[in-house]
Amino acid sequence: MKIVDKILKAEEENRPYWSFEYFPPKTQQGVVNLYDRIGRMYNLGPLFIDVTWRWGGKSSDLTLEICSTSQSVYGLEANMHMTCTNTSFKLIKRALAVAKENGIQNILALRGDLPDGSTEFDPEEGEFRYASDLVKYIRKQYGDYFCISVAGYPEGCSSPDDVEKDIQYLKEKIDAGADLVVTQLFYDVDLFVDWVKRCRDAGIKAPILPGIMPIQNYNGFKRMTDLCRIKVPQEIWDNLEDIKDDDQAVKNYGIKVAVDMIKKLRANGIIGTHFYTLNLERSTQMILEELNYIPDLEAIRPLPWAQSISDKRSRETVRPIFWRNQTKNYIARTANWDEFPNGRWGDARSPAYGELIHGVQIRFTGENALKLWGTPTSVDDVKDLFVKYCQGKISSLPWSDTPLLPESEEIRETLTGFNRAGFLTINSQPSTNSAPSNDPVHGWGPPNGFVYKKAYLEFFVAPEALPALLEQMENHPTLTYLVVNKKGNLKSNFDTGSPNAVTWGVFPGKEIIQPTIVEATSFMAWKDEAYDFWLAWSRVYPQESESRKLLEKISDEWYLMNIVENNYLKPTSTISQLLIGKTNGTTTN
Amino acid sequence: MKIVDKILKAEEENRPYWSFEYFPPKTQQGVVNLYDRIGRMYNLGPLFIDVTWRWGGKSSDLTLEICSTSQSVYGLEANMHMTCTNTSFKLIKRALAVAKENGIQNILALRGDLPDGSTEFDPEEGEFRYASDLVKYIRKQYGDYFCISVAGYPEGCSSPDDVEKDIQYLKEKIDAGADLVVTQLFYDVDLFVDWVKRCRDAGIKAPILPGIMPIQNYNGFKRMTDLCRIKVPQEIWDNLEDIKDDDQAVKNYGIKVAVDMIKKLRANGIIGTHFYTLNLERSTQMILEELNYIPDLEAIRPLPWAQSISDKRSRETVRPIFWRNQTKNYIARTANWDEFPNGRWGDARSPAYGELIHGVQIRFTGENALKLWGTPTSVDDVKDLFVKYCQGKISSLPWSDTPLLPESEEIRETLTGFNRAGFLTINSQPSTNSAPSNDPVHGWGPPNGFVYKKAYLEFFVAPEALPALLEQMENHPTLTYLVVNKKGNLKSNFDTGSPNAVTWGVFPGKEIIQPTIVEATSFMAWKDEAYDFWLAWSRVYPQESESRKLLEKISDEWYLMNIVENNYLKPTSTISQLLIGKTNGTTTN
Repeated sequence: MKIVDKILKAEEENRPYWSFEYFPPKTQQGVVNLYDRIGRMYNLGPLFIDVTWRWGGKSSDLTLEICSTSQSVYGLEANMHMTCTNTSFKLIKRALAVAKENGIQNILALRGDLPDGSTEFDPEEGEFRYASDLVKYIRKQYGDYFCISVAGYPEGCSSPDDVEKDIQYLKEKIDAGADLVVTQLFYDVDLFVDWVKRCRDAGIKAPILPGIMPIQNYNGFKRMTDLCRIKVPQEIWDNLEDIKDDDQAVKNYGIKVAVDMIKKLRANGIIGTHFYTLNLERSTQMILEELNYIPDLEAIRPLPWAQSISDKRSRETVRPIFWRNQTKNYIARTANWDEFPNGRWGDARSPAYGELIHGVQIRFTGENALKLWGTPTSVDDVKDLFVKYCQGKISSLPWSDTPLLPESEEIRETLTGFNRAGFLTINSQPSTNSAPSNDPVHGWGPPNGFVYKKAYLEFFVAPEALPALLEQMENHPTLTYLVVNKKGNLKSNFDTGSPNAVTWGVFPGKEIIQPTIVEATSFMAWKDEAYDFWLAWSRVYPQESESRKLLEKISDEWYLMNIVENNYLKPTSTISQLLIGKTNGTTTN
Repeated sequence: MKIVDKILKAEEENRPYWSFEYFPPKTQQGVVNLYDRIGRMYNLGPLFIDVTWRWGGKSSDLTLEICSTSQSVYGLEANMHMTCTNTSFKLIKRALAVAKENGIQNILALRGDLPDGSTEFDPEEGEFRYASDLVKYIRKQYGDYFCISVAGYPEGCSSPDDVEKDIQYLKEKIDAGADLVVTQLFYDVDLFVDWVKRCRDAGIKAPILPGIMPIQNYNGFKRMTDLCRIKVPQEIWDNLEDIKDDDQAVKNYGIKVAVDMIKKLRANGIIGTHFYTLNLERSTQMILEELNYIPDLEAIRPLPWAQSISDKRSRETVRPIFWRNQTKNYIARTANWDEFPNGRWGDARSPAYGELIHGVQIRFTGENALKLWGTPTSVDDVKDLFVKYCQGKISSLPWSDTPLLPESEEIRETLTGFNRAGFLTINSQPSTNSAPSNDPVHGWGPPNGFVYKKAYLEFFVAPEALPALLEQMENHPTLTYLVVNKKGNLKSNFDTGSPNAVTWGVFPGKEIIQPTIVEATSFMAWKDEAYDFWLAWSRVYPQESESRKLLEKISDEWYLMNIVENNYLKPTSTISQLLIGKTNGTTTN
């Protein structure tokens, strides 16, 4: 979707909106962390996100990848930056084609940096001189497909003297076909408001989105504003003077400055904000909270998981629960599906899940992994790691990159008990009975609705513990299970042709929405990955090492099982009785 | 489905089963009453029903119609009787073709009555002499399509001396291709058990279903058993002697006799029962209750409404609520649909509802209608009739052939209040919050599930009362409505492209099942019928009469509205506040 349409709608409804700008991190670990952050900041309800651009094989590919992943995995519309200087026409052509292929529909067209030391740029034949050339080129080649935004410079591009000339350049960029202006950062609201007025007077009608960069620390702020010749009101310098050595105090003051600026902009009829996040999370979040811009749950959580943004996936409203902590893998495995289940699993009952070609990746490898997980040499060591993860003492396991979700807080102790008893849990959700759809933890979907969850537990279990467990299951008619081993021998106690809805919502004037299911076909696809995580982990340790052999053995011999408690009305779960009731008895590991 | 398959399954599971035999009534009113009865007796869980046959234009057409309606409207597998004497080959050929066209898959092949006074039958060229000829013919023409049952005569067809010969005839009928034996009625269980043994000895392996006719009154019983030379144990005569003048006592004794017979048969390994109901309901029901053959809700109520039995409709699992009291009309209007909504309204969102060609029929016409509804000459008179219907003082209104459903008992007084306030209600359901799926009133679907309903109310409202009502609606965000006038001007307060699920169930190992919806397209089709009932009613009165003009005026001017309370958790309904809260105020009729 074009972000300008989202902006015009928000403007029409006089509804404040905001966007977040990120830059591609330099390390793989940084990229993984950024994805986590983007995923969390989704809940702050940005209208879209920006990702900056640097030319050069990996750099620009990474921008493309982050934009594409933001859309498919995190359901966030991406505005991809693209510069036109210092690069060839051919590369630009290719980058635009790849962007379109990846479903990216928004480009921020920039001139880019000049060659070192230059103040004027002399392009070669076939190269672009100005951002307006890039705008024209995109419009010519792609018609209306892309929403094009361009940069605005409230304090002039290079110097304050350029302001009037820059407004003319901006007008040219708009006339060349740009839809939207995103401005350089500033700290003087009066100056900005005046500049906007001058733009309007010059005939620029496109939406203008002010760039706000929360102050993060004194030295950085001083260096940056000096370098970019950005005017900072004296009051800000005065206030910073006393606290400049206290980073936390500076950050907090930065939040206050931004809040005041946004309020003042709003008083002047400017209701949008573009945050230069510097890939940081806290300041932006605090500012939005301070402003009481509490995101509207309906707007940001139409379903309990983030929907992909792509035409192909737009009808996807049901997913299996198994990949809940591995959404990227799910998107990848199902990338080639022709259609997605809509409302019910129905016709896509046997979707051809793509093969797991390259195996799974674990986040921590080498030294980091050793530091986190040590060198387990017995099942008890492994069990201890799972227990520690549930207790929050380690932040990650191969199956779960992030700590337990807030919704699982209430079952943290129970989960700890399961793992202590030798049931190594890798996925779970507590039951929810008719929580309001605007509940901050459990809620999703339109207002005045009610949401539900059946308790779900997925775990590895030792082969010697399985028979007694299955026997016990027979006494609990409200429990349904699927259990499989690495070879794929599946056993269950319900009609596996039928999916089990484990998350659903009831809303005014709507059919029941059931976005999460437990289902045998997808479980069989998931189990390949679930077992592969053992092997990926084992490769942290040298061949023939005790740890490696241990993890391989578990992968070969243990069963992967999931249990659903279908009675979501019961306050205490039968699953607990079943698993913890037998702690002292038959478990053998 | 072939009834023999259902029987063999029940036999394999050693699960008692029963079937009901009806005959086509002579009057139209009788047919209407029989349908009501068949609908109610559905809840007694018969494995199938039989409908007897008499040749002759209307008679045999009526048998076909009752069989076909039982399957499509009441979801009951029908076993259609067919005789082969006294009729032409051509008629038989046509009747079988029509039966197949109508989805009837079970035929009871009989010889039929002989011409008056004959004891032997001499067919003309091309006619059938014996039932076995008919069996052979059906098998030859239709292969395996039909399940064919044949009659067995435990006491001989014409006289006790024929028994052995009749067993040979029976063997011939089975050898000719019959699947199943349904026996003539009897009262001597020992005799029957012995006869079954002789049948088995003669090589008859097909299931044998004993015919039981509960004694209804002394004289009828005596006449019938004399005429048919049926042996009645002396004990029964002795017991009847003292009570023969007390019909109720005889009926009760008849129940006891049948219960004892069925128990004794069961002790001898015979677990099926074919009830000759004589189109009566109470005895059969009492016998089944006495035997503790409480129907398994799962088996008989997979959905809250009876599913049609036809290949075409087999995937139909969602229906609009509007035709709840007019299922036959719904089946007729949708008879030509290519596919039926399955699980969600989805792709059938704009199904082409057939036109309402002949207008609606009301059950009571002429004298009966006048007796029931009198001659209303004011809106208050009409209102009084609706109030009386809710109070149970009159049994029927044009829109509702039968009294309020048991599930509506709890809202009877509220409904009365609505009608007194001038909101003429024609359909409603109270809300249900997580009732167990085996609840005797609200339950449906598999065990260990929970079922839900949103409160629903549909009513006619005077044009002068509508504006205030719509204004009030704005204060109630949990209410959604659709309102339309005769011309078809539709207004609503929700996205009418989306259906509202008003009945749903959550079950172990399954997706959410949502069998009843409120939806705009179908509401527009239904409103034609809803308004037509006013006109059908008006035609009870002479042209130019006050009553006729009144009902026509209401039909022309009043609005048809439905309201859903989407908060099904609230114990008291906002609809009540809305409608009854304004009784003394703004309503004007």
